[in-house]
Amino acid sequence: MLVYTIKFMPEGYEAAANDGDNLLEIAMRSDVYINASCGGNGTCGKCRVKIVEGQVRAPMHSKVSREDYDAGVRLACMTTVHGNAVVEIPPESQVDRAALGRKAEIRHILSVLGDRDLMRGWGVDPAVTKLYMELKEPSADDNVSDLRRLEREFQTKYGRTDIAIDLPVLKTLNRTLREAGWKVTATVMETDRGIGIVNVEPGNTEARDYSIVFDIGTTTICAQILDLANCSVVKVAERGDNGLDLCTVAELSDYNGQIRYGDDVIARIMYSRKKGGLEKLQKALVKTMNGLIKELLGMGGIRAEDITHIVCAGNTTMTHLLLGINPKDIMLAPYTPAMTAGVSGFGASGGTERSGASGIIIPPFRAKEIGIALNEHGRLFVSPCVSSYVGGDIVAGVIGSGMFREEGISLYMDIGTNGEIVLGNRDWLMCASCSAGPAFEGGGIKFGMRAGTGAIEQVKIHPSTFEPMVLTIGKAQPAGICGSGLIDIVAGLIETGLIDQNGKFRRDCDTARVRHGEDGYEYVICYAPETTAGRDIVITEVDIDNLVRTKAAVYAGCKVLLDNAGLSYGELEKVIIAGGFGHYIDIERAQVIGLLPELPMERFIFVGNGSLLGARLFSFSKDLLREAERVARNMTNIELSNSPSFMDEFVAAMFLPHTDQDLFPGVMKRLKNSG
Amino acid sequence: MLVYTIKFMPEGYEAAANDGDNLLEIAMRSDVYINASCGGNGTCGKCRVKIVEGQVRAPMHSKVSREDYDAGVRLACMTTVHGNAVVEIPPESQVDRAALGRKAEIRHILSVLGDRDLMRGWGVDPAVTKLYMELKEPSADDNVSDLRRLEREFQTKYGRTDIAIDLPVLKTLNRTLREAGWKVTATVMETDRGIGIVNVEPGNTEARDYSIVFDIGTTTICAQILDLANCSVVKVAERGDNGLDLCTVAELSDYNGQIRYGDDVIARIMYSRKKGGLEKLQKALVKTMNGLIKELLGMGGIRAEDITHIVCAGNTTMTHLLLGINPKDIMLAPYTPAMTAGVSGFGASGGTERSGASGIIIPPFRAKEIGIALNEHGRLFVSPCVSSYVGGDIVAGVIGSGMFREEGISLYMDIGTNGEIVLGNRDWLMCASCSAGPAFEGGGIKFGMRAGTGAIEQVKIHPSTFEPMVLTIGKAQPAGICGSGLIDIVAGLIETGLIDQNGKFRRDCDTARVRHGEDGYEYVICYAPETTAGRDIVITEVDIDNLVRTKAAVYAGCKVLLDNAGLSYGELEKVIIAGGFGHYIDIERAQVIGLLPELPMERFIFVGNGSLLGARLFSFSKDLLREAERVARNMTNIELSNSPSFMDEFVAAMFLPHTDQDLFPGVMKRLKNSG
Repeated sequence: MLVYTIKFMPEGYEAAANDGDNLLEIAMRSDVYINASCGGNGTCGKCRVKIVEGQVRAPMHSKVSREDYDAGVRLACMTTVHGNAVVEIPPESQVDRAALGRKAEIRHILSVLGDRDLMRGWGVDPAVTKLYMELKEPSADDNVSDLRRLEREFQTKYGRTDIAIDLPVLKTLNRTLREAGWKVTATVMETDRGIGIVNVEPGNTEARDYSIVFDIGTTTICAQILDLANCSVVKVAERGDNGLDLCTVAELSDYNGQIRYGDDVIARIMYSRKKGGLEKLQKALVKTMNGLIKELLGMGGIRAEDITHIVCAGNTTMTHLLLGINPKDIMLAPYTPAMTAGVSGFGASGGTERSGASGIIIPPFRAKEIGIALNEHGRLFVSPCVSSYVGGDIVAGVIGSGMFREEGISLYMDIGTNGEIVLGNRDWLMCASCSAGPAFEGGGIKFGMRAGTGAIEQVKIHPSTFEPMVLTIGKAQPAGICGSGLIDIVAGLIETGLIDQNGKFRRDCDTARVRHGEDGYEYVICYAPETTAGRDIVITEVDIDNLVRTKAAVYAGCKVLLDNAGLSYGELEKVIIAGGFGHYIDIERAQVIGLLPELPMERFIFVGNGSLLGARLFSFSKDLLREAERVARNMTNIELSNSPSFMDEFVAAMFLPHTDQDLFPGVMKRLKNSG
Repeated sequence: MLVYTIKFMPEGYEAAANDGDNLLEIAMRSDVYINASCGGNGTCGKCRVKIVEGQVRAPMHSKVSREDYDAGVRLACMTTVHGNAVVEIPPESQVDRAALGRKAEIRHILSVLGDRDLMRGWGVDPAVTKLYMELKEPSADDNVSDLRRLEREFQTKYGRTDIAIDLPVLKTLNRTLREAGWKVTATVMETDRGIGIVNVEPGNTEARDYSIVFDIGTTTICAQILDLANCSVVKVAERGDNGLDLCTVAELSDYNGQIRYGDDVIARIMYSRKKGGLEKLQKALVKTMNGLIKELLGMGGIRAEDITHIVCAGNTTMTHLLLGINPKDIMLAPYTPAMTAGVSGFGASGGTERSGASGIIIPPFRAKEIGIALNEHGRLFVSPCVSSYVGGDIVAGVIGSGMFREEGISLYMDIGTNGEIVLGNRDWLMCASCSAGPAFEGGGIKFGMRAGTGAIEQVKIHPSTFEPMVLTIGKAQPAGICGSGLIDIVAGLIETGLIDQNGKFRRDCDTARVRHGEDGYEYVICYAPETTAGRDIVITEVDIDNLVRTKAAVYAGCKVLLDNAGLSYGELEKVIIAGGFGHYIDIERAQVIGLLPELPMERFIFVGNGSLLGARLFSFSKDLLREAERVARNMTNIELSNSPSFMDEFVAAMFLPHTDQDLFPGVMKRLKNSG
């Protein structure tokens, strides 16, 4: 909800803004160039603007004299807007004319739909639920066993006669029933084989029904705590930047504790082959999860015993390591995982509820069995995988995005260390994993880094001065370049003509920022005094080459899937972008480098962390858990390394944006105009 | 198979014997009186007989002079027969004339039927089975997960699509498959909710498929090891008394390690209420089981990993303690156990295989979960119970005896510390527990003891000399009197007229063995020099009174059940006698004291340890496991303490044999003849 209008003079371009938005960020997202090389932390003093009128707030700053301040001069990066405003930008700044009047808002699936809406057509019906029951007290005339008394209640009140109970619940049943005066809440879990009694606790606790869901990434673990009684993520009140209480969700993330044993899945698998390696990896992962659980419980003010279950989604290797299953064969031809079925209690092969005939199921077990520090009874669910390199995170995303139930064809892209892509609709789905390389996560890039504080995430290059406008994560001192920054930089370099379509620097650039450095030609984004390391942050031709390889692998992978389906890009109804990466990526810039296909803006949709979104939906709906098993089982996995056309497509994509210029007519037109 | 004829002179009464039988035992079971007060251990020297002809063996003995030995004189207790023989017994010995020509052989269910015959109509179809499978090796064209490869084999080879697998099996699956070259044996467990994969091991191990079954008594734990591939108890070769190799079954027993915490179930429950008491009791029981397991494995030369499951049957308190479930409420009105359902994976309420709708089931779990030291995968099954005082041992016995599937009405009696009785047929069953008191296990009897070495287990009293003929267990020095000995003694006292029908000694007996002792009148069975404790072993009027109370409770309980069913004793087709007790009890003697009803001998059948028999059948047949749940659930439990007629029947039965002499016409006739 954009509430204020910010007019940038002299062009008069108007941008919309929310209360408290940062002025430099407004300019960045509105394609208004303002020099800014320190990433937004106020040290370079280059982003001076003049507030002509309007309500803004900015502190006095050493880079702005008293006299200038009184005349309305401010540093854009230090300024927040609190009403309509007119801002004069200096002559060397400029609005990107090509941008005027477009900037269709990219839809984020959750900005338009809440969890409840996503559930439409499925119903909120978790696999784990709480049932309050008041049992008849025993008497001489009716002294059947406690267990049978419970069974009777299930039969008469819920019509269920397919119930299983296990030893830990049995052991405390008689004491709990008596101490609770025969008024108890049973936690039950539905599977393809009936319901299992997970816990019996005193009193009516139906309203205290929570779960924790995890996206288990190779690099990062994200977690949310869900309120199942209200079908929402738990909300926490937080003091916002503006001093007001904000209502945000209880979500946290942390680096996967396995990182110390290797950066990517292959390194982890190698480590798992060492003596004790598998155990160490499993413990490191669970330790990270336990830390997040503890913090989330504190944040939400929720008792550990009220968490009835945990849902995890991760790639195939992470899934194996989480469960303590040796992942060796994932790495060795013919790449067979030990399991792809989810830990869900539901099977994939044609079974319907209570029929039982659904193939092998893995019933969710006590989370404590793998070391999760939570409580005695909480069950662990894990998303199913498709193959060794298309994992549970992707299946969760496919479910979360809803593409598996739509008539139109969607392309789902999750680009991280690997690029996983899924194509299809409600009738068919195919997927592939492109060994994209880690460029988007900072790997193979001289100043590459993961998307953390100080990472350069947005960059614009002035078309005539070639000066950069830089925003870092947290508006901190620049430390390196993350994936979205990398795309911005390379797109900027090609748009401004500093590099050619082969990714090579023009040797005659009219700027000192392009120079011959120790690794060949390079562009300086930030000079040493502005950076954390005190070294110039540059992008080299080698970096650009690595990025091109990566984007080419992803594009070629998509193309092979489309060809397999006999489809063209134009027939895609939606391109769904997932991944932490997806939070920041600028669609147009990604099109300029040829990572994303040139399609109308409204066909792109962000799901953010699709894996976490899917895990959340699994927690809310047993039908979606069952669908996930079916979807994972029926998805056709295309091994690109076995595909004869993949190499041809890859080579064709090793050009900016692409060898076949007809695939990117709009980009080519703009490049010609600016060139 | 009796092979030799032993003729006792001067009467010429002929008895049958096996090779190696002990001559005193032959005399005892043939109602030939020979004085013997040392229990058969050769110290009293009273059982002198003369071998007129035939093949016998006996060592020289200090009680027999060289001259006498050469003349054919031997101690009967030291003599074994190895051919037909003619034996002259001394004038003071005598054959019981009443016994001549009767002695119908009491049938022992297992002496006429093997396990395979007992299974007739059910089929040998264990709940836990081994399936050998050869999986297709993965290839680039077929690189589905290991789990799905396994699933495929289950579907194509066995048509099963209702399979569950759990984490421990999953964790080792990929390594096992590869190390075994994709040739493996899966151990699977069938339940009402489909099959569960219990274990996957390399190669074909179908022939190595064993179970261990337990009768968990309050006093004694009995165990057998079963060979499921051959549907039999494991046989072990043993050197017999005669020096030949005997083929006996791998069966062992030991005192329940809980004994130190109390003699009976009530004492155990009391102890379980102390801090840490429940855990101590559980551990003590499991320790005893572990000892037996270790010994049985050694006896049978069987590897622990080849035991796929364990089946236990015990009374309701033992079942609770085995599982670590607080048994407190068993003792407190209205006597509700925590559970009566068995740990079988099958439910009781109308479900059929794979329908799932069978009420609450308790799936068998890993035996190691309760501390059983066996292997990682072996599952634990436990027989269902009926109520707080009719337990899984009785349900197992009802299944083992086959009474639940017969048209005719049977009465099942298991008399130990408690007397549990079951009446009915295939259409209906009712049961009760009589608080019989521990007389038959030695409790409340001055020289009472459990049936162990040195316990006087068989006694005859000479009708005119009133001298006893005593046989102890193990033919050891007499240490006390066990249940069967007690019955023999009291029956003998009444038959010889030494006591009257009120159980009081006649004051004018013509024998020094009846005397006034410290507790009133008593009969001396063994004098001090012959006993282990160096004290006279006697039976007192107080002892007799306790026995009468006990037998009256059992008889009255049976009578109340019959009355409830509108039946008389005469309508019973079978009286089935179970319990360790049942190994030795003499039916006629038990009728003389009015413990058993006066019915033709052929209606009595022994099942020995019915609990162990049933446990064995549960291991052989999943259908019988399912039947057990149904039988246990549908059995009507009569609380005798709530039954108004019980006290009347009890009082009426406080007479030897009974106040209503018409119930025991045969006994009365014999008493009049002898009196």
